[in-house]
Amino acid sequence: MRDYNVAVVGATGAVGSETVRMLDMRNFPIRSIKLLASGRSAGKTMPFRGRDVVIEELKETSFEGVEIAFFGAGSGVSKQFAAHAVKAGALIIDKTSAFRMLADVPLVIPEINGTEIARHKGIVSSPNCVAVVLTMAIYPILKRYPIKRLVVSSYQATSGAGAKAARELLNQTKAFLAGEPLPREVFKHQIAFNLFSHDSPIYDNGYNDEENKVIEETRKILSLPELPIAVTCVRVPIVRAHSVSINYESDRPVDLDEVRALLGAANGVKVVDDRVNNHFPMPIECSEKDEVLVGRLRTDLSNPNGIELFASGDQLLKGAALNAVQIAEYAVGNGIIKG
Amino acid sequence: MRDYNVAVVGATGAVGSETVRMLDMRNFPIRSIKLLASGRSAGKTMPFRGRDVVIEELKETSFEGVEIAFFGAGSGVSKQFAAHAVKAGALIIDKTSAFRMLADVPLVIPEINGTEIARHKGIVSSPNCVAVVLTMAIYPILKRYPIKRLVVSSYQATSGAGAKAARELLNQTKAFLAGEPLPREVFKHQIAFNLFSHDSPIYDNGYNDEENKVIEETRKILSLPELPIAVTCVRVPIVRAHSVSINYESDRPVDLDEVRALLGAANGVKVVDDRVNNHFPMPIECSEKDEVLVGRLRTDLSNPNGIELFASGDQLLKGAALNAVQIAEYAVGNGIIKG
Repeated sequence: MRDYNVAVVGATGAVGSETVRMLDMRNFPIRSIKLLASGRSAGKTMPFRGRDVVIEELKETSFEGVEIAFFGAGSGVSKQFAAHAVKAGALIIDKTSAFRMLADVPLVIPEINGTEIARHKGIVSSPNCVAVVLTMAIYPILKRYPIKRLVVSSYQATSGAGAKAARELLNQTKAFLAGEPLPREVFKHQIAFNLFSHDSPIYDNGYNDEENKVIEETRKILSLPELPIAVTCVRVPIVRAHSVSINYESDRPVDLDEVRALLGAANGVKVVDDRVNNHFPMPIECSEKDEVLVGRLRTDLSNPNGIELFASGDQLLKGAALNAVQIAEYAVGNGIIKG
Repeated sequence: MRDYNVAVVGATGAVGSETVRMLDMRNFPIRSIKLLASGRSAGKTMPFRGRDVVIEELKETSFEGVEIAFFGAGSGVSKQFAAHAVKAGALIIDKTSAFRMLADVPLVIPEINGTEIARHKGIVSSPNCVAVVLTMAIYPILKRYPIKRLVVSSYQATSGAGAKAARELLNQTKAFLAGEPLPREVFKHQIAFNLFSHDSPIYDNGYNDEENKVIEETRKILSLPELPIAVTCVRVPIVRAHSVSINYESDRPVDLDEVRALLGAANGVKVVDDRVNNHFPMPIECSEKDEVLVGRLRTDLSNPNGIELFASGDQLLKGAALNAVQIAEYAVGNGIIKG
């Protein structure tokens, strides 16, 4: 297998820096790496495989010779620069929402629909982080127990809104404990020891943009365009890892032992379902881990064809950087990028 | 109206101290107040209406002459001592789970089923704090839109597990921020910047005791013994006030404006539903407040007969102490305790 010329757009951000780390840790075959960011970061260096890589300013001309470009600096940046990267011949793996719902852009979680990558026209999108945790938790089940409806409530970490938002939680919490005024920059509402409805724009139907992404992207990833989904997205005072409470309705009674076995056999999923020790998925146990944790499996008392479950996953890794690198690995491993 | 001889069992605890504060603030007609606690606290004093009341050790003989006794020191204490208080002629208002599901014990939220108080046989129970927030949020709706099913996920504050648990959150958070080992006494799992499935015993069906209470008590309060309810209870790193994400299924399409009006007219409820400013119920805005906040009203995208909503309420006040004092006010105001 040969090595590739790779670029990371938004290399200094929460997702970008994790992408660089994942490329390193997973021994991605790299000939050259270009770290691209705004002019502010240009000239600084980031370590990669034992040497310091100088961060370059992102420009339309940045992608010459680049074969794989990871975008993770916001959908505005993707919309502005992805076309230039495509024109330069790179495969774009976009972690923003910019292109996810376009018909000719595959929206991929390799464990679920990796085969979709082959139909790319220059761009493959990596899904919204809540949609990743949700679909990873239910995909192993729905082949056996057809899904009729989902009701989901999320518990989302601050780092999902970027590194600055995670720092705001820590700084606000420090100030709160010291009885000092709370610093506010990212979130409109206090996040220290508080929670609030997700900080994304709200549509006329009352759902916010995050909820809309979860609904639309889950349907697209699972190839279930009509799947009824109700979802409530909530920001909680947690640094890292998103959790979801899932009510899963099938068209038949669900055998929990079978579900446990299906989840246990699934790649990228770890069952944490210890009733005796009251040990179930928790953010701190999946932070900086690859696997999505799934547990609290039980038969829905309100519906004989339903089950309830709870999942936690690192939204910066499987929810973003790890999933993007796995898409690249799949593309390379399956000859989708010319070898 | 005459004054009454009142006792508060567990006066030094999270719920008990709030009960004393509520009795004071709401000008409850008190002739004498007895503050009862374990031997550890006996001899200490608590201020009440300008004088220091000496805390007495709770004994079987503590209730002589007492007309209203608030119990809030755990269900074990209620089971051990309530019968003695009943025998002494007191009306017991019990905030623990000890007697809630007994057929001849009314389980009361005055705004919903205050008339039940009259059938007491010495004990009236105040419901589980999550059940209070949930039923307060949905009761105004269900008279107009019959309820078929509920799917609920909770976001529960640490003080719901007692004052010591709330301190543990603060102390753990301080230690976390200082990079020191986390103190652990109350919760099995880390609570600082983490969340976990509710810390109550788990039954064979996979539901925990807290979830079971929410299901059974909601049915009893609403006089809907068969109401299908799916519920997931989660502890989050918040000091005070519980929140619930509610999926409400009716048997007909629901008019949101009408629901908003019904909630707006309901006693004890405040609508916080400002889509333009992304302002919805939050724990910090209902802490130490009487009202349960309800908002995020929207038509369920997965069910034409469903709505989704979000509610937050102070579980120590409306979820416990305030509701108990309101029960006493109702009993006094309606001649249920002899005048």
